Amino acid sequence: MPATPAWPPASTPRLFIDQPLTADSSPVIDGAAAHYLLNVMRLKAGDPILLFDNRSGEWLCETVDTGKRSLQLRAQQRLRPREEVPDLWLCFAPVKKARLDWIIEKATELGVARLQPVITERTIVERIKSERLEAQIVEACEQCGRTALPELADPVKLPALLRQWPTARALLFADEAGGEPMAGLQAAAPAAILTGPEGGFTDRERSLLLEHDAVRRMALGPRTLRAETAAIAAIAQWMGLHGDWG
Amino acid sequence: MPATPAWPPASTPRLFIDQPLTADSSPVIDGAAAHYLLNVMRLKAGDPILLFDNRSGEWLCETVDTGKRSLQLRAQQRLRPREEVPDLWLCFAPVKKARLDWIIEKATELGVARLQPVITERTIVERIKSERLEAQIVEACEQCGRTALPELADPVKLPALLRQWPTARALLFADEAGGEPMAGLQAAAPAAILTGPEGGFTDRERSLLLEHDAVRRMALGPRTLRAETAAIAAIAQWMGLHGDWG
Repeated sequence: MPATPAWPPASTPRLFIDQPLTADSSPVIDGAAAHYLLNVMRLKAGDPILLFDNRSGEWLCETVDTGKRSLQLRAQQRLRPREEVPDLWLCFAPVKKARLDWIIEKATELGVARLQPVITERTIVERIKSERLEAQIVEACEQCGRTALPELADPVKLPALLRQWPTARALLFADEAGGEPMAGLQAAAPAAILTGPEGGFTDRERSLLLEHDAVRRMALGPRTLRAETAAIAAIAQWMGLHGDWG
Repeated sequence: MPATPAWPPASTPRLFIDQPLTADSSPVIDGAAAHYLLNVMRLKAGDPILLFDNRSGEWLCETVDTGKRSLQLRAQQRLRPREEVPDLWLCFAPVKKARLDWIIEKATELGVARLQPVITERTIVERIKSERLEAQIVEACEQCGRTALPELADPVKLPALLRQWPTARALLFADEAGGEPMAGLQAAAPAAILTGPEGGFTDRERSLLLEHDAVRRMALGPRTLRAETAAIAAIAQWMGLHGDWG
């Protein structure tokens, strides 16, 4: 007996749309997303498409009509509510382009709730293009099946971050001088991981961190990890122990 | 009182050299490495340099003489013996260029002992340029402070890999259908992690894996991870629990 064919098929495109979806909504897609759906995916009337709105969850939609530069859709059925991702923030000093892209993509895939750029004394990257990072967040969510976008916070300087720090949230600091492995840390949610720039933290910053009540020194092994490797390794370890990977 | 200046300074170049070093060896550097040392790092006679040979460990060397295209060095002191990295293999289906590069670099940084390319039914990447991967391994080792290069094995097809599998080595398989979190698995060294290509494993491959005694199904959370994210996340988790990060 052949298996019941799955609907929608695995190849169904999945897109974020920044407008609320309901059972009777008729969203219109235009711009780059429409170009992709019309010319790359070659969507025609009747074809299914998955949309998520970061508000209500993920919806199975039907293509009602296609134009040259836009598509008319109709929401048919909500397949999943918006998820609650584990309450983990990544506080990261921006690094150079490709490696920063990687931090954003991987932190999103791994399930981080909030991305907080932190400006440190040795941070070389001057300007962060938040539109660019937002686009990468959206793409990673579309790819990995998230129904909730991680929040991208405005950049903040390290001393200000520490002054405003919420007392209940553990701040896991990748200290090059060592610390406890993740399994030995008090690090359950709410928590945050902090990673530095290419050149590491200064002695002054390190003192500031070690004086802070929320800070836990986290060991990431005897090898010198690049900034983005430390971020990804710490997130993966946290998710395995305290996140929703169980 | 000023601190004693550290020697060699943190900016000292660190390079792999494929010839045995001893207390009285006088290695000569030429080619691209010499270009880098002479024209980028601007090394002069008397300047320190760190060399590791993947045999005896890491040596502090002195620049004795510089030419137009080569440098004459002298090994002064062995600073560290060759390390024993944790006995973890990464068996990975090759993926496309940038993401493959990332797997190699990150697995090396995180401390993997052996990199085993695995050809699966859905592997799209036809040829693996092993010289290119070797160069990336060397660069990552130079950067992260490893004194032992991970071994790069010849590509092997999945069924052959499983037929020859060493019985004592746990094979941690990132099964999209789920499994146990790393902390719940019998996964102590010797162990290996297996990740698939962009399109995942076929049903036939999955059956072959699940029939194998060494295979443990490993859960990496509810989101769909890209191949390289799964590899890096699994290695980080394993290192934190069973490696040398304690």
